[in-house]
Amino acid sequence: MSTEKKYLDLVQKQNHYNQALSLLAWDARTGAPKKGAGQRSEVIGTLSSEVFALSTSNEMESLLTELEASEDTIADITAKSIKESRKEYDRNTKIPAAEFKEYVTLQSQTETLWEEAKDKSDFEMFRPNLEKLIDFKKRFIGYYGEETGHAYNTLLDDYEPGVFVDTIDEVFSDLRKNLVPLVQAVTESAHQPKMDSLLTHFPKENQQALSLDILKEIGFDFSAGRMDETVHPFAIGINPYDVRVTTKYNESDFRVSLFGTIHEGGHALYEQNISPDLIGTPLSSGTSMGIHESQSLFWEKFVGQNFAFWERNYPLLKKHANGQFDNVSLEDFYFAVNQAKPSLIRIEADELTYCLHIILRYELEKALIEGSLAVKDLPHVWNEKMQEYLGVKPANDGEGVLQDVHWSFGAFGYFPSYALGYIYAAQLKEAFTKSNPGFDQLIQQGDYAPIRSWMTENVHQFGRGKKQADILKDTTGSGIDAKPLIQYLQSKYTKLYKL
Amino acid sequence: MSTEKKYLDLVQKQNHYNQALSLLAWDARTGAPKKGAGQRSEVIGTLSSEVFALSTSNEMESLLTELEASEDTIADITAKSIKESRKEYDRNTKIPAAEFKEYVTLQSQTETLWEEAKDKSDFEMFRPNLEKLIDFKKRFIGYYGEETGHAYNTLLDDYEPGVFVDTIDEVFSDLRKNLVPLVQAVTESAHQPKMDSLLTHFPKENQQALSLDILKEIGFDFSAGRMDETVHPFAIGINPYDVRVTTKYNESDFRVSLFGTIHEGGHALYEQNISPDLIGTPLSSGTSMGIHESQSLFWEKFVGQNFAFWERNYPLLKKHANGQFDNVSLEDFYFAVNQAKPSLIRIEADELTYCLHIILRYELEKALIEGSLAVKDLPHVWNEKMQEYLGVKPANDGEGVLQDVHWSFGAFGYFPSYALGYIYAAQLKEAFTKSNPGFDQLIQQGDYAPIRSWMTENVHQFGRGKKQADILKDTTGSGIDAKPLIQYLQSKYTKLYKL
Repeated sequence: MSTEKKYLDLVQKQNHYNQALSLLAWDARTGAPKKGAGQRSEVIGTLSSEVFALSTSNEMESLLTELEASEDTIADITAKSIKESRKEYDRNTKIPAAEFKEYVTLQSQTETLWEEAKDKSDFEMFRPNLEKLIDFKKRFIGYYGEETGHAYNTLLDDYEPGVFVDTIDEVFSDLRKNLVPLVQAVTESAHQPKMDSLLTHFPKENQQALSLDILKEIGFDFSAGRMDETVHPFAIGINPYDVRVTTKYNESDFRVSLFGTIHEGGHALYEQNISPDLIGTPLSSGTSMGIHESQSLFWEKFVGQNFAFWERNYPLLKKHANGQFDNVSLEDFYFAVNQAKPSLIRIEADELTYCLHIILRYELEKALIEGSLAVKDLPHVWNEKMQEYLGVKPANDGEGVLQDVHWSFGAFGYFPSYALGYIYAAQLKEAFTKSNPGFDQLIQQGDYAPIRSWMTENVHQFGRGKKQADILKDTTGSGIDAKPLIQYLQSKYTKLYKL
Repeated sequence: MSTEKKYLDLVQKQNHYNQALSLLAWDARTGAPKKGAGQRSEVIGTLSSEVFALSTSNEMESLLTELEASEDTIADITAKSIKESRKEYDRNTKIPAAEFKEYVTLQSQTETLWEEAKDKSDFEMFRPNLEKLIDFKKRFIGYYGEETGHAYNTLLDDYEPGVFVDTIDEVFSDLRKNLVPLVQAVTESAHQPKMDSLLTHFPKENQQALSLDILKEIGFDFSAGRMDETVHPFAIGINPYDVRVTTKYNESDFRVSLFGTIHEGGHALYEQNISPDLIGTPLSSGTSMGIHESQSLFWEKFVGQNFAFWERNYPLLKKHANGQFDNVSLEDFYFAVNQAKPSLIRIEADELTYCLHIILRYELEKALIEGSLAVKDLPHVWNEKMQEYLGVKPANDGEGVLQDVHWSFGAFGYFPSYALGYIYAAQLKEAFTKSNPGFDQLIQQGDYAPIRSWMTENVHQFGRGKKQADILKDTTGSGIDAKPLIQYLQSKYTKLYKL
């Protein structure tokens, strides 16, 4: 058997274990019995250890070394795959095993501690663990090697490979400078949406039927996926032929399930349209968190919150809603679902204010890693920035610095990808519109095929085989640029709020 | 690490893979997307190969050999576990790998061929493959070693360890001699149930609510299990804390889901009540197919088709049924759900006629393995026996000899366990009644706890750690005995049909 074939068999085995792990994760979050949690963790532990062992095995190391030496004679997919495997090998072998184990234990303790601290709004309770986690992160950066000029770049590399602090500083600063006054103007506008109609009782079964219709409408392939209920919605690609979305129903606010479903549907369209040629290799997933988020946000915001979408689908909503919107005009409805209002909680934020929540977190994370901000000063700086960027101030740390789970399991470097997703989505939309000027008309007609095809051709099909920078360069001709997003938000909200 | 600990770690790893495989199997049959079937098979293939490799590894062999030599110093659970592992090791190593691979290929080809042959009622199409499968089986018996006086005993050992042809011949003959005249009398009785009310439209959602209520009623623990819809109902124990039942809904015949759910619920109660101490060992499952079936049949027949059960639950059924039984008396309803009528199809047979379907199959299988019956004569003998035992004759082989899937994948020796399950269930019920005479009263009061406790104490908790023969001996003081079943059927059907 050739070295290439041996390597492909090995990563396929990893992939098969990972598929089983994905199913276990989906199952755990969609109705698996509670009492099974302990055994389920053990099964997940055994399979994960096996994947880890394969990724750091002597066999992997020697196959990679051989293939790296003969890069010219191997297939393109293999050449790109070995880069991913090498990165994984390095990450998984550079940290001393004992230290990593200590870190994993701390992660899980801190996540539990965080829940309690959040409930009690008690930052001091959480502080010592957060300090330890940051110390670990700094040491890990040392092990990985800080090759790109800033320690935080090494963390970014886990989520958004190839994007560095200097770029993010520039685009986030551009975004912040433009958003802060716009948010302020919107807040002060006398013209505000009427929200009452949105918050009337909408039975769960009807919301479910609506979500299913809308997923079909945007082109989710139900023969290669399914939709279930969950507490914290997510989409998961077990493989491109089995991609599952989940949603949650709030009978007093149908927006949670409807826009949530479209959001997860966007992630799912990405996963369903990764080239089947990549199945079983490390390339068969989204290329970065930010590009993944660009797909969910593209469908949720640029399609689902588009006036043209509701010109077409408002009758469908009314059908499922059984009369509650009969006296609400399309224009009033559209304004209401696009309400923009500064608020304290990131996951409840609208598209206008969302990125400011992210920028704040990015600035704090970077300062913590640089050492220019001490953990003890975090709540104070958080509150100051909330006031400065959004004009609101948390009454306590539970609705402030303690609101997100991410830091409690050491996920530093993750937050920026949420805002990058918004920026990319706007850039991709602009690029699409250059070759297809009738974007809104397509949506108004429910003719999503050209949009999906364009996304598949330019983004989806490549999986991890094409990096974020190349996707942007080939579609937009440029790098990361906040202008399309700024223009979109300025134009939309100036009009909506009659600024 | 001690040898014992090493062994327990190894079987725990097998168990964790098997838990993942169980989840994959459940998922595949409860709504996994169609297009994912190919990838799913590959994942199942990879995990199964791993389990097989562990079961036949040098490590397993040397751990077993060491532990077998020191049986006195190891824990009881380990001592019983190594017997199971040794049996698996022997089974998996005795057949030459190439031959086994050829057999597996033939199995899957024949199952596909069987579907077509059944649809076309074309036995000749199926015959050559069936002959080859039987040849394989005979050769495998040779490899395994025919230690117990009859080749068929080696096949029985896969499903009902410790039960041999001489015992089955005796109890089945006893059963047959008593059932044939009883079935004939029932068929000829002028007193027959009115079936119309049962076959009225019963909406699926209502049936689902009823099934959930009844599962709760009999004590299924929903915090350690769930219920889903499927095409071919089954129960699956991933581990004792995660046991899943499935059901199917026929809107023209609510009995399919109701009694199906109780049946699978009986299997599930077994799996949920296996001692947690056995988790992760080869003992954490049902001890035999027959004992497992005794639990499902006990709940389905002796509880669910009991008059006392309907005295209590007929109002509940009426509530869910929305009026369709309002003019049907409890007595008429009870008679109807206990209709006994000879029919051609095993899986649709009632409790009175079911065992005759099994006895027929057992006699044919034994003759095929002995060589006293040629495959080409199978359809003819099948039809003759159907006439003799049940008084009905298939119009074609599709509803005759081709009706069951089992032979198409080489499952010879499996069928007897279905009838043994009936026999054991009646024996266990009789044993329970000796210490708890008010069986019907408990059911009428919905007080199942004493019944469940007794079953857990005497059957469930041991998993595979107690063999069928010991369970019967310790509960009934005897071996396999068809008399309690015969008495139950004679008494019940003589009364129902006024014989």
